[in-house]
Amino acid sequence: VIAAGAIDVHTHFVPSSVPPYGGAGNDAPWPSIDHHSSCCARVMIGGRVFREIDSNCWDGERRLAEMAPMRIGVQCLSPMPELLSYWMAAEDCLALCRHVNDEIAATVAASGGRFRGFGMVPLQQGDLAIRELHRCVDELGLDGVEIGTNVDGRPIGDPLFAPFFAAAETLSATIFVHPLRAAGMDRLIGPPALEQVVAFPCETALAIASMMTGGTLARHPALKLIFSHGGGAFAQLLPRLQHAWSFLPTLQAATGEAPEVLARRLYYDSLVYSPVALRFLIDQFGVSQILVGTDYPFAILDRTPVDGVEALDLSTADESAVLRGNALRLLGERD
Amino acid sequence: VIAAGAIDVHTHFVPSSVPPYGGAGNDAPWPSIDHHSSCCARVMIGGRVFREIDSNCWDGERRLAEMAPMRIGVQCLSPMPELLSYWMAAEDCLALCRHVNDEIAATVAASGGRFRGFGMVPLQQGDLAIRELHRCVDELGLDGVEIGTNVDGRPIGDPLFAPFFAAAETLSATIFVHPLRAAGMDRLIGPPALEQVVAFPCETALAIASMMTGGTLARHPALKLIFSHGGGAFAQLLPRLQHAWSFLPTLQAATGEAPEVLARRLYYDSLVYSPVALRFLIDQFGVSQILVGTDYPFAILDRTPVDGVEALDLSTADESAVLRGNALRLLGERD
Repeated sequence: VIAAGAIDVHTHFVPSSVPPYGGAGNDAPWPSIDHHSSCCARVMIGGRVFREIDSNCWDGERRLAEMAPMRIGVQCLSPMPELLSYWMAAEDCLALCRHVNDEIAATVAASGGRFRGFGMVPLQQGDLAIRELHRCVDELGLDGVEIGTNVDGRPIGDPLFAPFFAAAETLSATIFVHPLRAAGMDRLIGPPALEQVVAFPCETALAIASMMTGGTLARHPALKLIFSHGGGAFAQLLPRLQHAWSFLPTLQAATGEAPEVLARRLYYDSLVYSPVALRFLIDQFGVSQILVGTDYPFAILDRTPVDGVEALDLSTADESAVLRGNALRLLGERD
Repeated sequence: VIAAGAIDVHTHFVPSSVPPYGGAGNDAPWPSIDHHSSCCARVMIGGRVFREIDSNCWDGERRLAEMAPMRIGVQCLSPMPELLSYWMAAEDCLALCRHVNDEIAATVAASGGRFRGFGMVPLQQGDLAIRELHRCVDELGLDGVEIGTNVDGRPIGDPLFAPFFAAAETLSATIFVHPLRAAGMDRLIGPPALEQVVAFPCETALAIASMMTGGTLARHPALKLIFSHGGGAFAQLLPRLQHAWSFLPTLQAATGEAPEVLARRLYYDSLVYSPVALRFLIDQFGVSQILVGTDYPFAILDRTPVDGVEALDLSTADESAVLRGNALRLLGERD
């Protein structure tokens, strides 16, 4: 069962606590949650403050109260990306995955259809990742998992990850792709926030391109992929990639199918902070591929996601598809 | 004097020959031109074939003949980017710059206003770069210079390059920015062409962002900058940067002015291979900031640049601005 209203596929979750590190490593960058006040906490990783967070990271009641003014009916919960922990030993990462996935599943189960959930897997080791993906979908009832755009610098289009995507396709699991440890950091001049603000969209664009040029998308036409932040900068890369593809046999061999065809099989959230940019996504990818996303509850969130869609003056059917119908189709639900 | 017709600001030039290396280094990656047949040549760098080129890289008559079917009246010549040679010793690079700049200037001078020219400078050493920029503009009559998006990995927004941009602003020289040795190469899966096809637009986007967040654009409001390939993926980065700027004091301090204001001071070529993508540039940056660009004579060129602009159904005045008027204003010419 799924609740009424707009479906926000891009929101993050942090559990209210994490058990102490139980692995065998030294200096594993294992997270802990330091509850320094009643409303707030610090995510500590490797002894340093990674981020100050509010209780809306884990508190379902608070989330539900804050969804109302945003005109969101259903949130898909996914881990705060830094929790993905591809840089840990795989067994340690798996232990963290299991805890976070259990917490997300419990929060979803208690929500009466107001929350759906994406879990996390230790993608640095394929067999463990596939096993935990099965647990997420078959045992915990999650809709799929969040993954990063790269695993310790390897883009997700690397053939190394082919078995994982084959399993995801078979399971009909939704894969929500979020940028992480972005490329191009040496090109940034300015405050640390530029990684998220400026490098993330390029990182995501390169990840989508790698999924095409590494052959993953042609091999797995039924794979259900959502790319965050509207696919980053990919909509602007696509015409150039398509043009080059039209005359370069090496590119044609790499992608298997035309980039503009492959691009219209992927899903993209609406988190682009501009009606003009959102219209561009619809023009490039098709209205059937766009979902609402907000980055709730973090600082960069879009507080008026539904207004942003309404500002486009789409037809009633198209508007409804973006706000809810496309997500229902992806999640295998019907009204 | 400038000839009639559409003005293509993005075309490349390679001299028909390069004098032998005359510097003091060992293994300097000095280029040579191997004329292996009557029409064609190989650019050799460091003993390896860098690219097969045709005589239209240096032959003005052939260029003029090929401009006609493209409906281009005037080409701005700029060096093939690999010639920029920021990875050479600065004195060696300067010697190459002087040769290439002389050759471009001679080709422009013989063209009766059909060609304009952008030279090149050894940006790895600021004082030499400023001196050669002066020679290009004051002695050779060039309109400015082409620069890369980074100099050996340092983005052009690094304060290290501030004196160069101050000089360019004072001279009213046009700076044509082209991607080079792109960031994110470790994120590519597939054929080597992906550097140009996929990594270049992100590289350019990050370079524009660095010019904002490093403070260059606020410090030099009269700087005349053209970004190639429509600014790469920057039009999609801009709304996210603007949104983050609206609430992050660190970003406000870094850019000095709002990103969306700064973005509308820059020029962008039309080389995006899609009317929808070109319309997006106009919406994001303003019709007054868009110029025709084609990448002539290389394989990825847009053969129908004027048709691409006409497909937008702009007003007559706006269409004329994109095809010619904006470039005239930038180059300081009048009809």
